[in-house]
Formats: sequence, structure tokens, C-alpha cells
Amino acid sequence: MTSNPHLIADLTVAVKPSVTLADVHAAAARLAGVADRTPVLSCPALDEWVSAQVLLKCENLQRTGSFKFRGAYNAISRLNIEQRSHGVIAFSSGNHALAVATAARMLGSTALIVMPSDAPPAKLTAASELGAHVRTFDRYTEDRFALTDRLAAEHGLTLIPPYDHVDVIAGAGSVTLELLNQAGPLDVLVMPLGGGGQLAGAGVVTTAISPATRLIGVETATGDKTRQSLRAGHRVRIPVPHTIADGVTGEIPGELTFALNQHRVSDVVVVSDEEITTAMAWLFQEVKVVAEPSGVLAVAALLAGRVDLPDQRVGAVVSGGNIDLHRFHALLQSRLTRT
Amino acid sequence: MTSNPHLIADLTVAVKPSVTLADVHAAAARLAGVADRTPVLSCPALDEWVSAQVLLKCENLQRTGSFKFRGAYNAISRLNIEQRSHGVIAFSSGNHALAVATAARMLGSTALIVMPSDAPPAKLTAASELGAHVRTFDRYTEDRFALTDRLAAEHGLTLIPPYDHVDVIAGAGSVTLELLNQAGPLDVLVMPLGGGGQLAGAGVVTTAISPATRLIGVETATGDKTRQSLRAGHRVRIPVPHTIADGVTGEIPGELTFALNQHRVSDVVVVSDEEITTAMAWLFQEVKVVAEPSGVLAVAALLAGRVDLPDQRVGAVVSGGNIDLHRFHALLQSRLTRT
Repeated sequence: MTSNPHLIADLTVAVKPSVTLADVHAAAARLAGVADRTPVLSCPALDEWVSAQVLLKCENLQRTGSFKFRGAYNAISRLNIEQRSHGVIAFSSGNHALAVATAARMLGSTALIVMPSDAPPAKLTAASELGAHVRTFDRYTEDRFALTDRLAAEHGLTLIPPYDHVDVIAGAGSVTLELLNQAGPLDVLVMPLGGGGQLAGAGVVTTAISPATRLIGVETATGDKTRQSLRAGHRVRIPVPHTIADGVTGEIPGELTFALNQHRVSDVVVVSDEEITTAMAWLFQEVKVVAEPSGVLAVAALLAGRVDLPDQRVGAVVSGGNIDLHRFHALLQSRLTRT
Repeated sequence: MTSNPHLIADLTVAVKPSVTLADVHAAAARLAGVADRTPVLSCPALDEWVSAQVLLKCENLQRTGSFKFRGAYNAISRLNIEQRSHGVIAFSSGNHALAVATAARMLGSTALIVMPSDAPPAKLTAASELGAHVRTFDRYTEDRFALTDRLAAEHGLTLIPPYDHVDVIAGAGSVTLELLNQAGPLDVLVMPLGGGGQLAGAGVVTTAISPATRLIGVETATGDKTRQSLRAGHRVRIPVPHTIADGVTGEIPGELTFALNQHRVSDVVVVSDEEITTAMAWLFQEVKVVAEPSGVLAVAALLAGRVDLPDQRVGAVVSGGNIDLHRFHALLQSRLTRT
């Protein structure tokens, strides 16, 4: 066999971790009958307000209350029998924890969830009730990365990252694949942007089957790590954002997700906490669905006029609905007393 | 032509107003692309709680926020051009008002909505914003029936009744037709029971295409007019019920709806106000949807164990979601302070 430098170069590119449409199709096939095919809802009042046709992909109605189930299930289902029997580990106090705990149980594995000891008691309880083991740690004295790595090594656990992983991105990408199947062609697709997994998955899917669709991510005004990173041309670390959107408080975009988003995302816009609660109230009163702060970022951006979309067909993902009555009430309290 | 007493008897039966599967199919065809094909959601926690497979037909996510849109649109679409140009009239301060106002506008007609002057200002405003004319009256000094009749006669308006009308029942029946298409065979179908239109429509549909399905209506403990009427074998008038379920406060079942329900409904069960708020909280936290008190009666009955359904496939209709943040909070206040 002759040595061919071009071939070697191609192979080098091929082994760099990436995500393809085939990966998303495979994820969607694994999720069929397991994840919910979540409804796409429309709202005449919203269409009138934004002068566009908006199709809301309601992943807040997904199993475990967020799109995170798709990535977690896809990733765990790819593990071999031995890996599953040893179990998985995840660091999260939020939707990823619920997703990993549930998916692990469904797939005959066990999950160890690492959470800060000051996480809301309801979240600690929820993970336990789903059959997960919970290990708390002190956010101020312990390093969560070191702890997670040590626990994984000690117990032979496989880490399921919240977004920066091929199988997690492929699972998240199934949201967009499903939405395009349900809604038909879209001029614009707007989605909440945290670690960037869902947006990266959307990029993979739309690049392949709907390249004209503009892809827009929405961050909080205080947590615009990807917007800043896109401007800088490399990943930028920001201070821990102060926001009510507790699902999107990361300090730096994922490595893999950023590489994917950098080449596909048309724009990143931001919204304020006030705009987030407006969107929550709107979804409650007009669409009759419950969404959590991080879940409404895309709707908040539309309502605030952050995205220019005259007469276009717009997909917007409502990505999570895990908020209890107490917190929902507390966040909308000012609205209740004001009017 | 010879006189045939049997033929005459048959004709007499035939002209008595009734509703057939063909009427419901025709209604469904008129509603296609106009009403939303509302999603059927499942909830593993609910299934576990009731030891059955429950499929929630979410008519709270229907256009105008309740199943009432189906009957109102179907009835108004059946009017001729002259009737539509004169306009329609309805008595309602609730979901029927929103449905008639919206359907009239969509069909190029105008609606006059008669509401008590002490109806919540938000409801008066909502009907006006939908393009309807609103006529208020004093509940204590004016007779609403006489007023509605007089207004209809004076202005040549066609009355759109909230339930006791063939076209309204046929429209409401499309909920069941759609649910059976989406969910497949059901052992039991449970739905909120007010005037009885939706249940009557369900009876027409299930008798024809799913006769083995048990049909169960749910009333409030203080408003069990149909339960009492079924026991008595004729329509019974009850005192105005005191309940938080403001959509089901009628005093007597409809004439046509009762005749239909009497021959088909397996059972009517009742729930308390406390059980209603429990169901609202459950739907909020577990299913992530917003439902109003009258809309959750079926879910409340399931959660309270009022329906025996070991290992069965159960359809349950969530029939409306029109509740604002203030009232939602007020009703669930005790829950917020208690825990």
C-alpha cells in the first residue's frame, strides 16, 4: 500500500469528533417510542404580535420536562453492557440530572448525580425518587470536576456530559429533525442557548436538510458567553451570570458545540430577566403551557422584538418546563401585584 | 302513494333532532385546518399513580383555550349567508363566549355576547377584543332568557346555544373522534360534564366506532345535575352549585344532551373543589400544562381514585385552560403556603 499524504489528511479530519445528520437520524431512531414526539403549538396572538407565523416546539412537554432527555438517553443507549452495568455519572442540579437519572433507569443502568449541597431540596429529592444516587459537594471548598473524575474512576462510571459530547448533541438535534418534519420549511429557527448542544444539533440538521433556515440562539443579557465568543472568534470565559434562568449559567461555551455553532449560527441575541418572566406569563396565559426561565429564552426574544422576522415562518423551541408552583409564583409575583 | 302507518312512525322518529356519526365527521371536516388538532399527552407519574395508561386529550391547548371552539365554529359555519350577515348571539361569560366571538369573526359574521354585568372585567374586555359586541345585564333584575330572545328577534340574530344543539354537539364530538384516531382503542373515556355536549358527542362517536369503551362523566360534588337526573330517569333541576369550577354551574342538563347521555353514559362521578385544585397543581407540575377548574374534572376524578381502571387504556379530556395568573395563584394559594 502506497503512502498517500492526502488520504492521511482526510483520515485525520475524519477522526476529529463531529456530528453528522446520520448521527441525528440514528438518535431519533433510538428515541422513537421512548421520547415523546412533542407537539408543535401555534398561538394567533403571538403571530399577530410579531407579524410572523410562529411554531412553538414544546420540549417543556418532553419526558422529564426538557429536551435534555433526548441527549441523555441517546448517550446512555450507546454504552455497552459492561459500561451500563457499572453505571453512569453526571454533574447537574437541573434538567440534565433528571434526564440522566430517568434514562439510566429505563436502560437498566444506574446513575450517580453530583449536585451542590445547596441545591434546592426538591431537586435532590427528585433525582433520588427517579432511582439515582445523589452525591452532594460543597461548592466553595470542593472542585466538582476533580470530584466527578475521581468518583468516575473509583466506581468505573461513564461520564454523561450535559452538552459537549457527540451523542448528546445528536440526541438534542432530534428536536430540530422532528420540528422540520412536523412544521415543514422554516425561514428562521430560534432556540435557547446554554452550553450549545441543542443549537449545535440544529446546525447539523439544518445544514443538511434546510440550509436556508437562519439559526438564532438566545442567551441572557448577563450570560452571553457564546455571543462574546463568536465576536472574539474563540471561546471566551465570562463571570458566573446572575440570572433567573438557572439552566443556562455556564461560564464558557462547550468546545465541540462552539466549533459547530461558529460555522452555522446566524446570530445570538440576548434577553433580560424581565423579558423572561413576560414570556413565562405569556406562555401561561396565551398558550396554556408551563415553561421555566431558561426554557422561554426564544419566546422572550420574539416578544421583545429582538429578531427581525417580517412575515416569516419561525420555529421557536420552548426547551424546558421544570419549575414548581412556588418558584413560578415567586418569579411572577411582581406581575400579580402590579396589575 | 298508499298511507303506511309504519312509514309515518319512522319519519316521526327521523325528524326528532339527533346527532349521528356522519354529523360528527362533517363537523370534523369543517374544523380541519381551523381548529387545532390538540396533542394527546401522557404522564408516567400519572400512569403509575392510577395503575393504568392514561392519555390526556389537551383541549386546553385548543384555539380560544377550550373545546368550545369546535361546537361554536361548526354551528356558525352551518348558517347561510343571510344569517351570518345578521350576526349571532350567545349568552356566556366564559369559554362559549370566547369561542363564539372568535368563530364569528373567522366566518365573516358578528357576535353579540350577553354577559352578567358583574362578570370579571377581563372577560368583558376579552370578548370585545375578539371583535364581539358585549351587552351586559343585571342578574338580579333582568331575565337573561327573555333578554337574549328579545335581542335576537330585534336584530335578526341567530342564537348559538352553548351545548343543547345538534351542530354544537357534533362539533364537540370531534374531540372524541380525533382522540380515538390519535390514541387507538380506549377501555374508558373520562370527561368533564357540564351541559353535557361533549359527553353526548362522545356517546355518538363511541357508540358507532368503539362501543366497548366505557363513558364516564365527571361533575362537581355540588353540581351533580346529570348524576341526579340519571338516577331519577328524567332531568332534575338543582340549586345553583357553589364550586370553583365556573364553567359547569348549570342547574339542569340539556334536553337533547340528556336524552343522548341517558342511553350511553356508564357512570357519572363527582369531585370536590380540593380535588380540583390538586389536579390543577398536578397538571402544572407533572404535565406542564395550564388547566382551569372545570377543565380538570376528569383528571381530578382519576387522581382521587373515583374511577376503577386497573391496567386499562384510559382517555381523559382536559377541556379548558382559560384561567389568568391571578386566579390560578389565588386558587392554589393554600398549597403554596402549606408546603
